[in-house]
Amino acid sequence: MKTTFLTPGPSQLYFTVEDHLRMAMRENVCSISHRSKQFETIFSHAVSELRTLLQIPENFHIVFTSSANETWERLLQNCVEKESFHLVNGSFSKKFFSFSEDLGLDSTKHEVDFGQGFDMDSVEVPESAELICAIANETSSGVMTPMAEIAKLKERYPDKLLAVDVVSAIPFFQPDFSKVDSIYFSVQKGMGLPAGLGVWIFNEKCVEKSEQIRAKGKSTGTYHSISALLGKSKNNQTPETPNILGIYLLGKICEDMNRKTVEMIRQETIYKSALIYGLLERNKNLEPFITDEKQRSKTVLVANLLNGTSSELIAKLKESNIEIGSGYGKYKESQIRIANFPTHSKEIFEKLYDLLED
Amino acid sequence: MKTTFLTPGPSQLYFTVEDHLRMAMRENVCSISHRSKQFETIFSHAVSELRTLLQIPENFHIVFTSSANETWERLLQNCVEKESFHLVNGSFSKKFFSFSEDLGLDSTKHEVDFGQGFDMDSVEVPESAELICAIANETSSGVMTPMAEIAKLKERYPDKLLAVDVVSAIPFFQPDFSKVDSIYFSVQKGMGLPAGLGVWIFNEKCVEKSEQIRAKGKSTGTYHSISALLGKSKNNQTPETPNILGIYLLGKICEDMNRKTVEMIRQETIYKSALIYGLLERNKNLEPFITDEKQRSKTVLVANLLNGTSSELIAKLKESNIEIGSGYGKYKESQIRIANFPTHSKEIFEKLYDLLED
Repeated sequence: MKTTFLTPGPSQLYFTVEDHLRMAMRENVCSISHRSKQFETIFSHAVSELRTLLQIPENFHIVFTSSANETWERLLQNCVEKESFHLVNGSFSKKFFSFSEDLGLDSTKHEVDFGQGFDMDSVEVPESAELICAIANETSSGVMTPMAEIAKLKERYPDKLLAVDVVSAIPFFQPDFSKVDSIYFSVQKGMGLPAGLGVWIFNEKCVEKSEQIRAKGKSTGTYHSISALLGKSKNNQTPETPNILGIYLLGKICEDMNRKTVEMIRQETIYKSALIYGLLERNKNLEPFITDEKQRSKTVLVANLLNGTSSELIAKLKESNIEIGSGYGKYKESQIRIANFPTHSKEIFEKLYDLLED
Repeated sequence: MKTTFLTPGPSQLYFTVEDHLRMAMRENVCSISHRSKQFETIFSHAVSELRTLLQIPENFHIVFTSSANETWERLLQNCVEKESFHLVNGSFSKKFFSFSEDLGLDSTKHEVDFGQGFDMDSVEVPESAELICAIANETSSGVMTPMAEIAKLKERYPDKLLAVDVVSAIPFFQPDFSKVDSIYFSVQKGMGLPAGLGVWIFNEKCVEKSEQIRAKGKSTGTYHSISALLGKSKNNQTPETPNILGIYLLGKICEDMNRKTVEMIRQETIYKSALIYGLLERNKNLEPFITDEKQRSKTVLVANLLNGTSSELIAKLKESNIEIGSGYGKYKESQIRIANFPTHSKEIFEKLYDLLED
């Protein structure tokens, strides 16, 4: 029997990926020119299905990078001249902040302990910060920040750009596009796709900022500057030969998810997370790591082990063909992480429930 | 009957890719963690098979980017403080030069007409240039510069770094690693793999240069700086979640090519190119675009149409399930480009020969 991956990314592929991969081979998707009409159709299909899935308004551009890491770099190059401001509560938001240092920016952060969320009313963003970087779901710690909380930043600082990391949050998480200027994600988490593709979504304010930086004679990068990306995406193309297969699969999976409806996916996500959090609350060997229920991620569930190590538990579950994730970094052995993505069925979660209860 | 793509990239997949893709699905390659032992094995297998294929010495590092475009950017960020020097003879070498302008470098170039090669003895590199950027095979025009010619640059300028674009040249082209400091390629051409992966190979002199730039407080990038890449590659890992499937397939295809032997691949490449160039020389409707035989690419064959347009000829060949490339840019209708990569069999070239003769 095949293992099901409930790891927080890369994770189990969306259950239709293998069929689409076979079809991609039949349609020569990997051999066509990225300057052909056939590629333009693949590009526009992916963009249009994703727009439907996440209700992305027409005034937001959708472009492709190779990872969320790359998007961090491109965001800083294109939307920050001197100073960004970062909300940090785990390993990924911390890594993003370190990119601003690598680029020589005078950036600042508001950092809380690993596993904590933010009291947005008390966050003070410096006057000089140009871009606020928030995170919807810390994949390392399992803290989810609700959209209503993130929106407070836009309400308090309407003149600053606001970018939200939605890696491992979507498609469960619905961004409010009237309250953000950019969101981005990589596809190997909630979308259930092979790693190697990032999606970057931004509005005209980001484009203007990028133009202002260029007008001052400063570099915004090369083939993946906003200017270069939009120069090609307006014709449903990319500056470089891209991960064509990845873009093709993204369109197909979004189409499948739209057929099922994102509402159904969200309901199932809530059901599956309630099942496991309920068990964690009652279990003698495990407890939810995030104490504040409002901040508990519904897509990456993190638990403390009260007995034994994560290696032992992971090995035990593997015997039943379920693979879950270890804790992140120094929590590797003392925590487990369970992904709750659209590809993970209610049945597999019920099986996991039974196994964890034993 | 399925179409065979003799387009210059993306091109026909190497004939074993589909089998390896099926195996990748069975082995859950897209679901495993990029921090797992299983991934490290995939990474080290790809590096070691590629090392064998191209005879890459142990003192050269091998890392992964997402495209040759990305590698252009990383090379300039990490190996050039102020000034690079570019040999330009077509659209791709010209685009690389434009990246140096985008990054605000004071770079210079030696440019010859589209379709021309270089007289390396007459190329004058400025004293102040830190990196010389050469190109083994201009995919746009079909000019191949022999390694012995490129080596002259190293002999004349031993203290400067020399990087060679081997996109669409390898594995036919054998770099002389005693005469270069870096080579790079993307995998969707001669390697016959899905696009979305770049390979960057460089020696310790590039590492030192990158460290010197950092020591001066200048940025060399973020997750894909040489420092960040080597920090992870020493453990057979990558800074970001990479195109795991792409790295897996690269290892498998290199292994297949090594089994066949690169010498056999090179002999077949020469046979197939001689077949078509012979025909072009004798044909009334076509002629080789590159007049100097020594500079004619053996991997991307470019011909002028003496009658009709490339669209007509391409459409005609499609009826027989062979797809060839149009000319590049303004030569779109007046030229054709034929890829001669390891996946293209002698039989398919003999079929093409017969069709072109008619």
